[in-house]
Amino acid sequence: MNIGVVGLGLIGGSLCKAIKENTDHAVFGFDKDFSINSYAVMDGSIDAVLDDSNINECDYILLCIYPKATIEFLREKAPFINSKAVVIDCGGIKRAICDECFALSDEFNFNFIGGHPMAGLHHSGYKYSKATLYKDASMILTPKNTDDIVLLEKVTAFIKSIGFSSVTVTTPDKHDEIIAFTSQLAHVVSNAYVKSPQAKVHKGFSAGSYKDLTRVAKLNENMWAELFMENKDNLIFEIEHIINALSQYKEAMENEDTETLKALLKEGSDRKKAIDN
Amino acid sequence: MNIGVVGLGLIGGSLCKAIKENTDHAVFGFDKDFSINSYAVMDGSIDAVLDDSNINECDYILLCIYPKATIEFLREKAPFINSKAVVIDCGGIKRAICDECFALSDEFNFNFIGGHPMAGLHHSGYKYSKATLYKDASMILTPKNTDDIVLLEKVTAFIKSIGFSSVTVTTPDKHDEIIAFTSQLAHVVSNAYVKSPQAKVHKGFSAGSYKDLTRVAKLNENMWAELFMENKDNLIFEIEHIINALSQYKEAMENEDTETLKALLKEGSDRKKAIDN
Repeated sequence: MNIGVVGLGLIGGSLCKAIKENTDHAVFGFDKDFSINSYAVMDGSIDAVLDDSNINECDYILLCIYPKATIEFLREKAPFINSKAVVIDCGGIKRAICDECFALSDEFNFNFIGGHPMAGLHHSGYKYSKATLYKDASMILTPKNTDDIVLLEKVTAFIKSIGFSSVTVTTPDKHDEIIAFTSQLAHVVSNAYVKSPQAKVHKGFSAGSYKDLTRVAKLNENMWAELFMENKDNLIFEIEHIINALSQYKEAMENEDTETLKALLKEGSDRKKAIDN
Repeated sequence: MNIGVVGLGLIGGSLCKAIKENTDHAVFGFDKDFSINSYAVMDGSIDAVLDDSNINECDYILLCIYPKATIEFLREKAPFINSKAVVIDCGGIKRAICDECFALSDEFNFNFIGGHPMAGLHHSGYKYSKATLYKDASMILTPKNTDDIVLLEKVTAFIKSIGFSSVTVTTPDKHDEIIAFTSQLAHVVSNAYVKSPQAKVHKGFSAGSYKDLTRVAKLNENMWAELFMENKDNLIFEIEHIINALSQYKEAMENEDTETLKALLKEGSDRKKAIDN
């Protein structure tokens, strides 16, 4: 098959490399930074640059760019896309993208499925991309109709052939609710954590807990700000929830109420055991 | 030399094993759970049980029990301790312990130094203890006089002989301020994180960021509640600080203010790069 990949950053670059490593498909890649296209052809991660002349030959088109750019790209290129093609985006939010892209796929008669690979690094860009990024990772899919079994089986087989270990099918709404908790809140909390005045003077005092809590504090603010704004109802809910939870420990200490503090800690500890054991 | 170790949990048990592995010292160990004493003798982690008859022969006594228990133990055993001995505790807070223990060491004429090994696991108890727990770890020391170079050099050499890679000398006040940030806040935030209603339904949606943020959510609530209460001024400050920081991202989203959100994210990201690179 021919696979188009749009956006050759960490996610798109790694998809190209994983496809070349694990399958016999041809990869047509495109990045708005043309030097990256040349580099990717040179190192064999793509076979050719994706353009208006070959996009029609693609069986799959994987969009690995920011949410607004995803919608803009698809709006511009929809007339060129083959009616048998499946377009999958890889954006970190799904409602805003799927609303627009489902409509475009209906209008121009191709398949669109929302996607979100559960993998990443705290680095971005083509230079960090690697064929193994998706090893043991799950791919979330948000199809227009979750009961289109034929399409979902075909796409699942393709996703697994790239190297993903599993596929999770859900709705755009559910995706955005849960991802606000598992990924977006983690980045906000980590980013907020390092703002303490003590952060500047902690050398020699940090064990694993500090390292874990702050690993994702370093992030691409342009990408994350766009993702957060597109999912702000869910993310605001999560931030309010953790602020409320944190306030309870603080109040227990202010009230010198050791028993309540213990109960709050036990509640969190028991919850963690229940969900991850 | 003879080394006394009081409390054979994860920290004390690992100290016994590390001393036996890396030195020729005799280890006298004691746990209030007598079956652990027998087990530790049997597996060779200690040479004998520490008691009132041999505590006087110890050159070092390492106290690896909760803060209040540390003070109680030292008050009870101070009359038996050799005047050449150095007593080091391993508690997670230093002001409350050092205030009392410095006074006892003056009264009964032995050396006391506050200590805090920067190592741990999200498991506790003798069964998880291991000789390698302190490999590449730092030991924080809070001596009564930071200019007692002879004593500090002697203790540093001993600490490194056990397997620690470095020693950080500071005051009890400074220790408690920084540890509130690097360790205590990490445990509170992680414990609060999993209380979201989404925590129950996230399977298939979690990448590394969720795992990192929640690793230390599972904790021993009795120990941490005691540590938090003994350091509540510093920990309340840190919780207030992160609540305030989190509120700023939330407000930026509520105001649809993408530029402020970006600036807040960039500030955290830049801070992380500056402190850990």
